[in-house]
Parts: sequence; structure tokens; C-alpha cells
Amino acid sequence: MDFPTQFNTYVTRAEQGIDTCLPAASTRPGRLHEAMRYSMQAGGKRLRPVLLLAAADLRGNPLHDPLPAAAAVECVHTYSLIHDDLPCMDNDDMRRGRPTAHRQYDEATALLAGDALLTHAFLLLSTRYSSDSELSRELVRELASAAGSEQLIGGQMEDLLAGKNAGATGAQLEYIHLNKTAAMIRASLVMGGLCGGFLDGGEMGTLRGLGRELGLAFQIVDDILDSTADSATLGKTAGKDARNGKTTYVSLYGLDEARVHAARHTQAALDALAKLPGDTTFLRELTSMMLDRKK
Amino acid sequence: MDFPTQFNTYVTRAEQGIDTCLPAASTRPGRLHEAMRYSMQAGGKRLRPVLLLAAADLRGNPLHDPLPAAAAVECVHTYSLIHDDLPCMDNDDMRRGRPTAHRQYDEATALLAGDALLTHAFLLLSTRYSSDSELSRELVRELASAAGSEQLIGGQMEDLLAGKNAGATGAQLEYIHLNKTAAMIRASLVMGGLCGGFLDGGEMGTLRGLGRELGLAFQIVDDILDSTADSATLGKTAGKDARNGKTTYVSLYGLDEARVHAARHTQAALDALAKLPGDTTFLRELTSMMLDRKK
Repeated sequence: MDFPTQFNTYVTRAEQGIDTCLPAASTRPGRLHEAMRYSMQAGGKRLRPVLLLAAADLRGNPLHDPLPAAAAVECVHTYSLIHDDLPCMDNDDMRRGRPTAHRQYDEATALLAGDALLTHAFLLLSTRYSSDSELSRELVRELASAAGSEQLIGGQMEDLLAGKNAGATGAQLEYIHLNKTAAMIRASLVMGGLCGGFLDGGEMGTLRGLGRELGLAFQIVDDILDSTADSATLGKTAGKDARNGKTTYVSLYGLDEARVHAARHTQAALDALAKLPGDTTFLRELTSMMLDRKK
Repeated sequence: MDFPTQFNTYVTRAEQGIDTCLPAASTRPGRLHEAMRYSMQAGGKRLRPVLLLAAADLRGNPLHDPLPAAAAVECVHTYSLIHDDLPCMDNDDMRRGRPTAHRQYDEATALLAGDALLTHAFLLLSTRYSSDSELSRELVRELASAAGSEQLIGGQMEDLLAGKNAGATGAQLEYIHLNKTAAMIRASLVMGGLCGGFLDGGEMGTLRGLGRELGLAFQIVDDILDSTADSATLGKTAGKDARNGKTTYVSLYGLDEARVHAARHTQAALDALAKLPGDTTFLRELTSMMLDRKK
């Protein structure tokens, strides 16, 4: 199967999994469940669930169905976007080409829909893997750790603080990107590996390293696109970082140097992939594609 | 041991557990971890962790340490208060006699501290019960279910919607109280029973019924106190429900009838307790005390 076909197959599976794993929009209270689905169905790249499904497939058929875990990581990613977009945070009106949740509904509904998606992720991991309690526990630990105060939320907090002060230093920017972006990408790969069930401890460590490098490359490319692409292509407000005086790889190192950083982390990701067992073709192509993406 | 001494012993244990189970305030990012601790250390009745510890003790020494689970339910309770107090929700300035989190810090920090406490609860349950994966999974499921879109958050959403409309009917008010208040009280008891490790399926069901009745009694008394006590005694803004035109048991049924409802649910809780094995003295006294409390 060629790469675009395989990618679309994973996206389709992920979206079907998401649909199956969320409460119906008619579930009481309807407004809350509609808002949860509105944000989850807004599309986006589905990068995290695709990475999870691909990691689960590394050595052939996974031992455990990775779809609930894929839905769980997308729940957490989407909650973080809903809360990031709120007026007290980035105050953004557009996301994935549509009004943000608090624009479509209202602030209170958006806040609660985000809270509910975060909570739902853990409900999925504790109910859909009941046949293997230890797997369930490891998935919860991995996700709670990546999404927690010392990773995803910590990165978000430091990002906000840097915005209020003179901006971030290079070391602060790396902390922010490692935690705000790379942590959830790493967790997606690790959770996929756990569902697959065939990787030893060393291989899981390699998967973590891959996630770190892929996450950093992804965020640097995001910074580059924010400064070079237009809003219509991105599906979100472009040029926002510069207008907000936000430190990015581009503002700190310039466009050329940022591209060198992105290429370096991409190469490190490819090096990690070379150490992994099984068929890594898809993940290799995905890694290269992420460097060259236009949105 | 007399009831007040026993109660204070549980509170002290719960607070020590909370202190042990939270990241240090100096953990990076400091502002986030300070805000998490600020809200968690604000005191309050510690009702949920105390119920959890008491349920774990029903048949003597619990099989598993209930303190991390007690800290987890308090993390979730505190997160829900922080988010409820935000300007887009109840917009409250005082909580437990101190400025609310967004008043003490700022809205963004309060939002993130709430998110972080919710996430941390699941990290605790997945890391502190690693010796018994099935217990860990059941604790996560119980908490994620009680705190989720069809219980705690669902109750909060319907409460908001009722406030925007003409107010709630009796049936809507029961939905709100069952989910916004009783669900977490029930989960605390059930999680305590799980940590105890000695209750059979029927007894766990009785514990659920106890939680439901205790939760409804508790919320009705809350409504009564909001309309009869002063802010200094309550440690939070009194008379808020009436000023906000909010439907409560008092506005719907009047003070006398509300007291009858509270007494009826208290009696149902005592009936459930009579069916439970072990030493239920403490929980019986706690149930009666909650009916007569002044704050």
C-alpha cells in the first residue's frame, strides 16, 4: 500500500474509532455532548491517533485493539486545544477552519467540553481494556503523565509565562516544545507500542526517543508555517506568533536556522526508526512528510 | 474514639496524604504547582476523602492504602471548584474563606491548575496501585465515570443551562444534584470500599445507594445553608443562589419542605448503613452530623 493510501486508511480508522468511543450527541446533557463531538469532529491531521495505530502495527497484528487508546489521545489533544483557545488563554476564534468551541457555543460550554474530553480519555482506557488490567494501568499512567502538570500543562504554563515576560530563551523554548508538543506525540507512540504488545523495554525506549525527536521537528515546522503560510492553508489564524510577540524557533534563530533544526530532529527520528524492529516504512515516510508539510 | 476525634484523625490523615501525593510547589513550572497546592490546601470539609477512608476501614485494616485514592478524589473535587469559580461560570471571588484561584493568580493559571489536578488524580491511581492492576483499573473507572460528562460535568452543564433559562423543575434539580454532588460522594465511598477489599458485590451496591442518599441530603442542606447562613460562617459567598435567581430545594419547595427532604434522604442513608457489615458507627454519626451542620 502506498503512503497516502495507508495514511488515509489510518485516519479513517481513527475517525471511526473516535465516533464509536464518544457518547452520542443526544446523551443528556445534549449541549455538552454536542460540543464534545463538534470539537472532536473538526478534523485536523489526526497525527497522534495515526502514530498510535502505526506503532501498534509495527510487528504485525497488535495483541490489543488500539482504537480506544487512539480515541483517548485525540480526546486529550482536543481538550488541550479547546482550553488553549479560550479568551483567558490564546483567545482564538478559528481552529481547523471552523469557529473555536467557545465561539460556536459559549465559554462555559467550551470549558466543560474540554474537561469532559480529558475525563473521557481515562474512562475509555479503564473500560475498553478490562481484559488486561496491567495494560489498562500502563496506558492510564502514560497518558496522565504526558498530559500532566510536568509535561503538557507545564509546557502550556511556561508558554504563557514567556509570553507575558520578555519572551523565552532557547532553553525555555525547548522546555515548552518538549512538553507542550513532544510529550503527547511520544505518549501516542508508546501507547501504540503497549497495545501492539511485542516490543521489549529497550525498543519501548527507542520509541520514546523517536517521539521526542518527531515532536520537536513537528513543533519547529509549526513555527515555520505560522510565519510563512496563510490562514486559509493552515485552517487557523496564521502569523499569530509574530503578532503576539511570541518567541518561536523562527523569532529566536531565524527561518534558515529553524529549518536546519527541523531537519536535524527529523534525521534523529529516522535514526531511531532504524533501530526499531518490524516494518517501519510507514513511520519513516510519515516522518519525512511531516518535515515537508504545508499545513 | 469519639466522633469528633475520629473525624479530625481522618482529616489529618487525608491532608497528610494530599501533601504527599502532590508535586512539590517548587516543581517546574513553579507558578502552576503553587496554584495547585494553594487550592488543595485551602481546607474545606475534606468530606470526600474522609468518606473514602472511613469506607476503607469498614471491616478493619484495608487491604490497600486508601490515601492516594483519597488524594485523587480531593484533586477532582478541587479542580471542579476552581473551574466552577471562573468568571465564565459562577464568577466567584471567595472560596473556603480565601480568594478563589483566579483571584489569587489569574484566569489562565486557575484554568491550568484545575486541568492539572484532574489529570493528576489519574496519575495517582495508575502509579500508586501498581501492585494490583485490577484495583487500579477499577479506581480509574469509578472516578472517571463519576467525574465525567454524564455525571459531575453533566450536572454542572445542566445547572448552568437551568440558570440561563427560567430555572429548573424538580426533576431537573434532582438530576443536577445527583450528578453535580452525589456522584463524587458515591465514588468516594465506592473507591474506599475497593481499597478496603472486603466487600462483596451486594455490599458495594449498598455503598452506592448510601452515597446517593448522602449526596442528596448534603446538597439540600447546602441549599438551606446558602439561604440561612452568613458568608463568614460559610467561608464562601452566602445568599448567592437567591441573588442569581438560581433554583434550589429552598426556592422550589420552601425552607420547611427542603428540611423534610434532607431528613428523608438522611434516613435513607442510615437505612443503607444498617445493611453494611463491619463497624458503621463513624459513618452513621457523620451522616447525622451532615444534616445538622452549620457550614
